[in-house]
Amino acid sequence: MKVLVVGSVGYDDVETPVGTRTSQLGGSVCYFSVAASYFTEVGLIGIVGKDFLDTDRDLLAAHDIDLSGLEVSDGKTFRWSGSYIKDINDAETVGAELNVLGDFDPKMTGLHSDVPYLFLANCDPDTQLSALDGMSDQLQLAAGDTMNHWIAEKPSPLSKLLAQLDVSVINEGEAKQLTGKSNLVDVAKAIQDLGPRDVIIKRGEYGAVWFGGDQRFIVPAYPVQNVVDPTGAGDSFAGGFMGYIGATGETDAQAFRQAVIAGSVIASFTVEGFGLDRLANLSAGEIERRFEEFAELTTFDSTHGLPLRELQLAN
Amino acid sequence: MKVLVVGSVGYDDVETPVGTRTSQLGGSVCYFSVAASYFTEVGLIGIVGKDFLDTDRDLLAAHDIDLSGLEVSDGKTFRWSGSYIKDINDAETVGAELNVLGDFDPKMTGLHSDVPYLFLANCDPDTQLSALDGMSDQLQLAAGDTMNHWIAEKPSPLSKLLAQLDVSVINEGEAKQLTGKSNLVDVAKAIQDLGPRDVIIKRGEYGAVWFGGDQRFIVPAYPVQNVVDPTGAGDSFAGGFMGYIGATGETDAQAFRQAVIAGSVIASFTVEGFGLDRLANLSAGEIERRFEEFAELTTFDSTHGLPLRELQLAN
Repeated sequence: MKVLVVGSVGYDDVETPVGTRTSQLGGSVCYFSVAASYFTEVGLIGIVGKDFLDTDRDLLAAHDIDLSGLEVSDGKTFRWSGSYIKDINDAETVGAELNVLGDFDPKMTGLHSDVPYLFLANCDPDTQLSALDGMSDQLQLAAGDTMNHWIAEKPSPLSKLLAQLDVSVINEGEAKQLTGKSNLVDVAKAIQDLGPRDVIIKRGEYGAVWFGGDQRFIVPAYPVQNVVDPTGAGDSFAGGFMGYIGATGETDAQAFRQAVIAGSVIASFTVEGFGLDRLANLSAGEIERRFEEFAELTTFDSTHGLPLRELQLAN
Repeated sequence: MKVLVVGSVGYDDVETPVGTRTSQLGGSVCYFSVAASYFTEVGLIGIVGKDFLDTDRDLLAAHDIDLSGLEVSDGKTFRWSGSYIKDINDAETVGAELNVLGDFDPKMTGLHSDVPYLFLANCDPDTQLSALDGMSDQLQLAAGDTMNHWIAEKPSPLSKLLAQLDVSVINEGEAKQLTGKSNLVDVAKAIQDLGPRDVIIKRGEYGAVWFGGDQRFIVPAYPVQNVVDPTGAGDSFAGGFMGYIGATGETDAQAFRQAVIAGSVIASFTVEGFGLDRLANLSAGEIERRFEEFAELTTFDSTHGLPLRELQLAN
């Protein structure tokens, strides 16, 4: 196993302009692990209730995802319901029931603790800290996400977590909330000052930005014409990103650029179907073709400069 | 003269988080023509009042901008006042006085009517149509912008104008308003259906997108750390874009990509100062360096594909 992800498994009710779905498989680790599975061996740590369906377990297993860390507990699986009717790009949370997720205490066995690349998907920062503490010295890179709720309610453990992360992957709005700043460059610097060497800011329909050392990389989102359900796009992005790193074992600047593209490619599929419908059923050809489209979308001739005139200005 | 721009010249009062300025030179054609002047010979058609300052005329002339189409009329110059206090990325119009701009009737002399590249900056669509009608058959490419006010108040002449434009350059929000659509791909197609072969959607802090034929190009905005005054960024973008086309005489897909970069490079400077303070005082070295930064910001390795695994999925 190259990549381990810790976070939520859940059942979602979603309402989008295209339609509604109830009790569809969701949660950050499901989107993440399926996305990463296209690139590398991935395992997940999560908790579900007795109501968790065999067909959903089979879907994850079909992606060669290690499920030995999926704990089944008495009670019901975490549930979330959200609506995209007002804004297709911004989920409105209609309701959430933590259920067994409220007692989630990740158990890191040897199989898990020796993994080189760890992603702490959005969940309680105390849980994220507990998982990180359980890793062995085999750990080469720890990345993590968070959300507005934890920024407001658990600043202290979140701060402790950020101090130990190598990579922070965070939504633009939440990055602004976390830092109290509004300018993108200031926001990234402020997060780096909290600990992570690398900061990846997710901008939804506008793509993503990576700030690392003295380098920066900005990638647009693929212009998806048929957005069906944006749920899980951010976690899919993180899964593609970490999947690339797991597959190559590279974490230099060039690898980060490619990994951000990998995440963007995979996330662009997620939104084309409800839940995991599209994400879980990708062919290699589809992924390769969209990678080429990202190149076509962003390429210009940087070898020849701009055709500047000579103006005699006072400066 | 390679590029001609028709639109407003004005004096602006602006309030931003950095400070306030009163009666600073502004208006769409001033930003446009100064931006374009770094690449090619540009002339402007506009109207000012007797209060227009010689120092402002001198500033434009120093950029080798042809001012023979700048009419001086009895009365006061157009004035606009805006605030960026609530949102640095979105101007709130506090007030506007049309003054002499209310009687603007562009007079196209032979010098102007024989120009190959025309930009109809945001103003009354009837005025834009009048200017377009005054062009000779030397015209090779007509591009134009508009805004929410005209979309709402003058849909009929605007529609007539769009049917004759080669390139529509428009803000994302106004493009959505114009088409009644929300998805970026749908918006672009709907504008193309109104006439223009090429659509360039300006996304402010998120950059710009070009849709033309079967090609698309997305460029991020440069991550400016010190945003002083965003006024004129969109017009500067258009000026850089048209300036590139004027300088090269090329309008194929590759040229459009480069022209969009040229616009993005120039607009990134505009926001770093109040009014034209920064835009009007650029050195060739600064422009070249920022062009290189755009390459660094967007480059990844597209020659090697993604490291995909072989998964045995049912699809």
